Amino acid sequence: MTMMTAEQYEASLRRLNLEVYMFGKRITNVVDDPIIRPSMNAVAQTYALAQRPEHEDIMTAVSHLTGKRINRFTHIHQNRDDLVKKSKMGRLLGRATGCCFQRCVGMDALNALSIVTYDMDQANGTEYYQRFQQYLTYVQDNDLVCDGAMTDPKGNRRLPPHQQDDPDLYLRVVEERPDGIVVRGAKAHQTGAVNSHEIIVMPTMAMREADRDYAVSFALPSDAEGIKYIMGRQSCDTRKLEEGRMDRGNPLFGGHEALVVFDDVFVPWERVFMYKEHAFAGSLVEKFATYHRQSYACKVGVGDVLIGAAQTAAEYNGAERASHIKDKLIEMNHLNETLYCGCIACAGEGHAAPSGTYIVDPLLANVHKQNVTRFPYEVARLAQDIAGGLMVTMPAEADFASPLTGKWLEKYYAGDCSVPTLNRMRILRLIENLTLGTAAVGYLTESMHGAGSPQAQRIMIARLANMAEKQRAAKALCGIDET
Amino acid sequence: MTMMTAEQYEASLRRLNLEVYMFGKRITNVVDDPIIRPSMNAVAQTYALAQRPEHEDIMTAVSHLTGKRINRFTHIHQNRDDLVKKSKMGRLLGRATGCCFQRCVGMDALNALSIVTYDMDQANGTEYYQRFQQYLTYVQDNDLVCDGAMTDPKGNRRLPPHQQDDPDLYLRVVEERPDGIVVRGAKAHQTGAVNSHEIIVMPTMAMREADRDYAVSFALPSDAEGIKYIMGRQSCDTRKLEEGRMDRGNPLFGGHEALVVFDDVFVPWERVFMYKEHAFAGSLVEKFATYHRQSYACKVGVGDVLIGAAQTAAEYNGAERASHIKDKLIEMNHLNETLYCGCIACAGEGHAAPSGTYIVDPLLANVHKQNVTRFPYEVARLAQDIAGGLMVTMPAEADFASPLTGKWLEKYYAGDCSVPTLNRMRILRLIENLTLGTAAVGYLTESMHGAGSPQAQRIMIARLANMAEKQRAAKALCGIDET
Amino acid sequence: MTMMTAEQYEASLRRLNLEVYMFGKRITNVVDDPIIRPSMNAVAQTYALAQRPEHEDIMTAVSHLTGKRINRFTHIHQNRDDLVKKSKMGRLLGRATGCCFQRCVGMDALNALSIVTYDMDQANGTEYYQRFQQYLTYVQDNDLVCDGAMTDPKGNRRLPPHQQDDPDLYLRVVEERPDGIVVRGAKAHQTGAVNSHEIIVMPTMAMREADRDYAVSFALPSDAEGIKYIMGRQSCDTRKLEEGRMDRGNPLFGGHEALVVFDDVFVPWERVFMYKEHAFAGSLVEKFATYHRQSYACKVGVGDVLIGAAQTAAEYNGAERASHIKDKLIEMNHLNETLYCGCIACAGEGHAAPSGTYIVDPLLANVHKQNVTRFPYEVARLAQDIAGGLMVTMPAEADFASPLTGKWLEKYYAGDCSVPTLNRMRILRLIENLTLGTAAVGYLTESMHGAGSPQAQRIMIARLANMAEKQRAAKALCGIDET
Amino acid sequence: MTMMTAEQYEASLRRLNLEVYMFGKRITNVVDDPIIRPSMNAVAQTYALAQRPEHEDIMTAVSHLTGKRINRFTHIHQNRDDLVKKSKMGRLLGRATGCCFQRCVGMDALNALSIVTYDMDQANGTEYYQRFQQYLTYVQDNDLVCDGAMTDPKGNRRLPPHQQDDPDLYLRVVEERPDGIVVRGAKAHQTGAVNSHEIIVMPTMAMREADRDYAVSFALPSDAEGIKYIMGRQSCDTRKLEEGRMDRGNPLFGGHEALVVFDDVFVPWERVFMYKEHAFAGSLVEKFATYHRQSYACKVGVGDVLIGAAQTAAEYNGAERASHIKDKLIEMNHLNETLYCGCIACAGEGHAAPSGTYIVDPLLANVHKQNVTRFPYEVARLAQDIAGGLMVTMPAEADFASPLTGKWLEKYYAGDCSVPTLNRMRILRLIENLTLGTAAVGYLTESMHGAGSPQAQRIMIARLANMAEKQRAAKALCGIDET
Repeated sequence: MTMMTAEQYEASLRRLNLEVYMFGKRITNVVDDPIIRPSMNAVAQTYALAQRPEHEDIMTAVSHLTGKRINRFTHIHQNRDDLVKKSKMGRLLGRATGCCFQRCVGMDALNALSIVTYDMDQANGTEYYQRFQQYLTYVQDNDLVCDGAMTDPKGNRRLPPHQQDDPDLYLRVVEERPDGIVVRGAKAHQTGAVNSHEIIVMPTMAMREADRDYAVSFALPSDAEGIKYIMGRQSCDTRKLEEGRMDRGNPLFGGHEALVVFDDVFVPWERVFMYKEHAFAGSLVEKFATYHRQSYACKVGVGDVLIGAAQTAAEYNGAERASHIKDKLIEMNHLNETLYCGCIACAGEGHAAPSGTYIVDPLLANVHKQNVTRFPYEVARLAQDIAGGLMVTMPAEADFASPLTGKWLEKYYAGDCSVPTLNRMRILRLIENLTLGTAAVGYLTESMHGAGSPQAQRIMIARLANMAEKQRAAKALCGIDET
Repeated sequence: MTMMTAEQYEASLRRLNLEVYMFGKRITNVVDDPIIRPSMNAVAQTYALAQRPEHEDIMTAVSHLTGKRINRFTHIHQNRDDLVKKSKMGRLLGRATGCCFQRCVGMDALNALSIVTYDMDQANGTEYYQRFQQYLTYVQDNDLVCDGAMTDPKGNRRLPPHQQDDPDLYLRVVEERPDGIVVRGAKAHQTGAVNSHEIIVMPTMAMREADRDYAVSFALPSDAEGIKYIMGRQSCDTRKLEEGRMDRGNPLFGGHEALVVFDDVFVPWERVFMYKEHAFAGSLVEKFATYHRQSYACKVGVGDVLIGAAQTAAEYNGAERASHIKDKLIEMNHLNETLYCGCIACAGEGHAAPSGTYIVDPLLANVHKQNVTRFPYEVARLAQDIAGGLMVTMPAEADFASPLTGKWLEKYYAGDCSVPTLNRMRILRLIENLTLGTAAVGYLTESMHGAGSPQAQRIMIARLANMAEKQRAAKALCGIDET
Repeated sequence: MTMMTAEQYEASLRRLNLEVYMFGKRITNVVDDPIIRPSMNAVAQTYALAQRPEHEDIMTAVSHLTGKRINRFTHIHQNRDDLVKKSKMGRLLGRATGCCFQRCVGMDALNALSIVTYDMDQANGTEYYQRFQQYLTYVQDNDLVCDGAMTDPKGNRRLPPHQQDDPDLYLRVVEERPDGIVVRGAKAHQTGAVNSHEIIVMPTMAMREADRDYAVSFALPSDAEGIKYIMGRQSCDTRKLEEGRMDRGNPLFGGHEALVVFDDVFVPWERVFMYKEHAFAGSLVEKFATYHRQSYACKVGVGDVLIGAAQTAAEYNGAERASHIKDKLIEMNHLNETLYCGCIACAGEGHAAPSGTYIVDPLLANVHKQNVTRFPYEVARLAQDIAGGLMVTMPAEADFASPLTGKWLEKYYAGDCSVPTLNRMRILRLIENLTLGTAAVGYLTESMHGAGSPQAQRIMIARLANMAEKQRAAKALCGIDET
Repeated sequence: MTMMTAEQYEASLRRLNLEVYMFGKRITNVVDDPIIRPSMNAVAQTYALAQRPEHEDIMTAVSHLTGKRINRFTHIHQNRDDLVKKSKMGRLLGRATGCCFQRCVGMDALNALSIVTYDMDQANGTEYYQRFQQYLTYVQDNDLVCDGAMTDPKGNRRLPPHQQDDPDLYLRVVEERPDGIVVRGAKAHQTGAVNSHEIIVMPTMAMREADRDYAVSFALPSDAEGIKYIMGRQSCDTRKLEEGRMDRGNPLFGGHEALVVFDDVFVPWERVFMYKEHAFAGSLVEKFATYHRQSYACKVGVGDVLIGAAQTAAEYNGAERASHIKDKLIEMNHLNETLYCGCIACAGEGHAAPSGTYIVDPLLANVHKQNVTRFPYEVARLAQDIAGGLMVTMPAEADFASPLTGKWLEKYYAGDCSVPTLNRMRILRLIENLTLGTAAVGYLTESMHGAGSPQAQRIMIARLANMAEKQRAAKALCGIDET
């Protein structure tokens, strides 16, 4: 088996023994928990679509290690075309699920490690790259979901790891043994953590020698002894506990984030990909961030859903021919496709790292992500404009179903009489979901902070823009000779 | 009694016998319903602050009818200073509650009626104005909350009222009796409906003769026979049903909207302020809309809260000295104060209507509201930028309280060690509330659609801008003589 | 005489003996110089409109010193109404001239000095206020134009005045005599300098004791011995030297800036309003800047002209009914009126200084000016959108007049046949003038940097926004108790 | 010879006998005219850079017809890589010249004709494609500059060509002869017209049968009998007539536009590529527009110059370390690189037309151009912010050179003392040139209207966005089943 079906994926999750907490209690059946389930459904789409012939080119690839056809999420990019297809895969799945499908972080972690483990070995004669390739073969052969875990809690932002009051506020090595190491700490904001088979840990920033205990990267099964998951809550999360489906907006799919605690967890050496190599921590962070900024191609797909919903709402309201409505939909498409240009361009301008892995153009990837921190908010604002106020004042699904109130709602919420009133409500609930509800967490706030907050990209843009060349050009044109 | 205390207000609500439905069931105790209660608390602040000496100048006025000191929400504006104070009252209460306090619509309805009932009498020799003044005296003397009900369901937007499949999709007169009239229809998006003593109905748009049955305005006690309220639901509304307070963000205050159904309701003649006067329907809509666009001064106060929360979050994160954080806070203040300029300017440029009532400058009121449909979204985006991703990934309050998970959260969500971890969580939940939760309904979506959707203001701007004068100036300067 | 006619003003300028240089040569007849003349014409409008009964209320006031009716440009604001009328006067003149009319800086300098001379006397027992009032009476009685001179050349921005390589890079006292002082230095960007009777010098920033020689303010006749003017050049300035009028866009009116050099100039004591009072330098700068930020009301009037021109161009192109054209004109009006709100609001919220002079609200004045650094650029962009490319590709007026080419241009540049082709050209040249030509200097770049560059306003917004109050409100709402 | 040097290019222009008018007079020596010369210099760079080995890959290609190495401007795109290199060539030349280098229109016309002549032949059995290929071989072998002429004067925008008062307001066939056709009309806004060897005429919009006389495309030598050029004037054009170089900002390079009149001009059949094929007029317009919208890659290169100039101005002012300056430069780079993403993405997503010619993705090309109508204006605004007001108030170069004023300017315009004052002035003049002067015509107004005004792109975005697919996705997610 190199590629699982969605059903096999779900079954594989049931075999895990995760320690998951939510609302202060341990969850015994993670897969069927009504709040978590939609996020599992979304990941399952990464398997389901890979089975469809029409998506094979986008969703799968041929492993450069084994020559087998594998899910693209486990693939190491071999050329620019791979990078471009990664962007297209993101848009495809974003449109199919209308949410975060959670599997990019693992892909991005694998690709970043494929570069940096090679670089470390070249520099220091270590053997991380070989270890990593064995691990990669295992992931590809078993078609696994990997959580890529980077962000530490960080405590006081003004202090480096070793100066924090509590040294565990950054994940670190607390013990070295003959057969491996023991780590302690936590990773925050872990997208899709409890839907993953594996968790790949990376440091969260560049480090100096004094912080070398924190310069550690490794992979573990997600249910390794000592790993605990505490689920984050989302806007409108408990609607998933209600009867009925309409008020959820997107009843099938969603995302999740969790705090992952490492309570003195053992890692065998063959799973350690960086050990106190503080000089390479920054490079690993940067490679991962660059890849992950490209991954925000997915928001273009979610934007497609929101644009489609807004167009539909306009039609149900009988307003789709108004020139201002048409113009707003053009603007939404314009912004969404400008984002698409970003993720396609940084891929098309990619280049090979020394290991042979292809990586996107870092300047354009940062530019792309910076736009992702802006445009979805404007697309959402325009969607709310088109939807109308009913989106936030309509009663609950239970009111539509009730003999006491249903008849009034059916009567007074009729729009174009050819459209069932409930369909009008459904599309408005989807827009609510994407702009205020569970999916807004992914489409808006995660677009802001995922893969680095806006300022992180601005710092990289300042660093990567070739100002010397631009100044040379300007001075030459106006006749300044400083030689 | 001309001014009630907050406690008297609450007691007065308990005496009402409203027919309210939510989640498909009738609510027997409206005042204490946990989902509705915060909205009642917000209205109560309009009473509480009027009792405080330091706010007397802003919160109260002297009735031009009775000479008694009254709550400004029941006052008819007598000069520009009244108009300016109305804007300041909005900001004050927005800041005090962090939400919609629901009492402006009644104030705006009263003022609009004070103009148009006078105008109708002047034109047609009717006696609406006298009726209205008696009603106004009653409202002022008893310090009542009035719901101003304008928006009809509207059905198919391309058809006028009398051509709709269902003639009830706009509220209308269905019977004329010696002692009054009977009306049927509904009003949507009714802010604060179930916290009101009175409901003042107005038509929703300009009308032609064929629609004269729809040109009707009147006032009724909110618990009049045949009036039914179906509560709208909001993002995160059911958090108010959970134990604990933190996850609500703003545990005390909120807003609400309802669909109000008029199931053949009788209105006595002395409460009828417009009866089939289709020629004046447009004027009443325009006057109310103009006043109500000014009323979006309140969002400046809510913006104050969000800015204060963002500053606090930055401090708790130890990031308040970063130049990009400071610059974002400046931008938030800049946008918020630009809104303030709008509501102050349209008031300062107000003028007297023939009845003597002062009304704000209509062009500037529309310009102000148009900015309200934009800037709060950007302020919210910047607040999410400053808050960081934890705002949407932090676990539930129950996780903090649980012996299973509390210690991990306490350990790993510590920021600046001088700040209790829970305080850091509280401020993030408030930002979530204002940008994604119950208060986002008011701060964002209602800012978009309340008092007319953006396009409504644009139409008015086109109509009110004096283009002829501008063209004259331009042609004169470049030497075009067309005389 | 307390108010001159435009003709008397022109005659008064001819009596001055200014030392003016342009294009490397001394100008002997300043008033009739074709490049300078339009700027004189613009100032003359401040006299001409003050003579018209319909503008008396806006353009004139009654002196609080003499009780005589005076031009408002020489008036000290006595109440909020005066402040509001100042804003309206700015818009009126901006619309009448389509450019900078140059007389605000003097008005703002007089008002700022009326506050700070009083404050200094109160603090230190000096007699600056009395001197100033005598000077003010002279200005009012003779209806003079005063240049308000603040900005020093500044040299290296990182060094204070006394540490500059050349101590003259900030204007300073170089000698004290029994009858007065001698000053040396320069003032840059002096708007309307050579159209002024008087020049009022102020320091350019807050100062410490080491810089006390630079803390000096005084007034001089503009043709005092040792004052030299070097004219700045503007985009398209030499079109004013060409035959024909059309290509100038706005053939009658314009603005100018000059570098003013003080080559050891003597100032008698009765004209000295601040002498080495370094502790008050910052206050004077701040008061002047606050007033002057309000003065950018004028750009609303210039915006009126540009909007009128764009509407006319659309009509001449036969495109005025296209929905996107109408929408762009709405947006231009919306932005322009948002600016108007700013200058009206900061005036309406003004307050009295200890001297009795009224001053605008400083926070809102800064917010207003900040918007002025943005919106005119967008209004200009939209005007170029509506105008079409012909604005920058049309041939010269000489081509239209030439027998060789005129017939082709007349034939091929016809639009709507009811409009003379030349009128279509004239309106496009006006738009060019305002967005790329001489008037763009005032409408765009001066909007950016006049009365302080954008960052100066942002620093003031940060300082003036009451963050503590906002944080109190936020903490109270989410249950943070830090007492 | 398949590739000329810059010198050979200039010599070839001298051999032309063009009928050019400017300022109402015929120009006898076009190449050396001081106003036109800089535009010739800019075109010459397209030859000069093609000679440099380091640019060979970008600037040249191998002809698919002859196998010879040719200038890329005469190449027909054979694959996506060609399309990407076209974008890079545009940026390279924009940065090298700081202006419009005028040679894209011909390249875009050739590529569009290579598609549509083939399509017409396939549909109708004509032989346009063969004619075209012979013409193309001639252009490639002789390395010619072609002007691509599309935009007709259009007269009254509400009327089709054949209903205009003057039927010549769109270019049309007035006579058919055995050996060719005679055409009459004009083309407006012709970029680089008088620097071209050839002029390729295309219709300006889709046409119906009644307008078939207007559906004509052909090529002529630029000095064919009856073709007249009337030069457009630009902001600050006559600074090129002044002594000195500094005030021109960019003394070497510029652009130009002209009105080209066809006064009954004969075209032999072998040069006719479309003859009354009204059904294909729209396709030719669309193909050309699509290619040409990509061509606005050049503005990224001009943006590079402006960013470099702003950075340099900040350094000369000693302000480059201020955080707000750094942030503005980041924003300028961000916007500029977002544009780059657009032109790279539409190229990377290109596809082959039936003729084998590769064409860019039309949706993304329109999205790219739409951003070009916005971002350069904001980049220019930020550049003016950083430059400071001196950019528009500094005296003329003659003042710096004059013994009367030079010493004062040298003294008072010194900034960082390590920088010659004149260099500071030069960089400010370059910024003036790009934001208000001759180059602003290209960087701003031409960015707005070239290759179609903004609304033209919006119409295409509406047409090309796949709304049905987006609506399907949205409906599926929220449970709407309309089958």
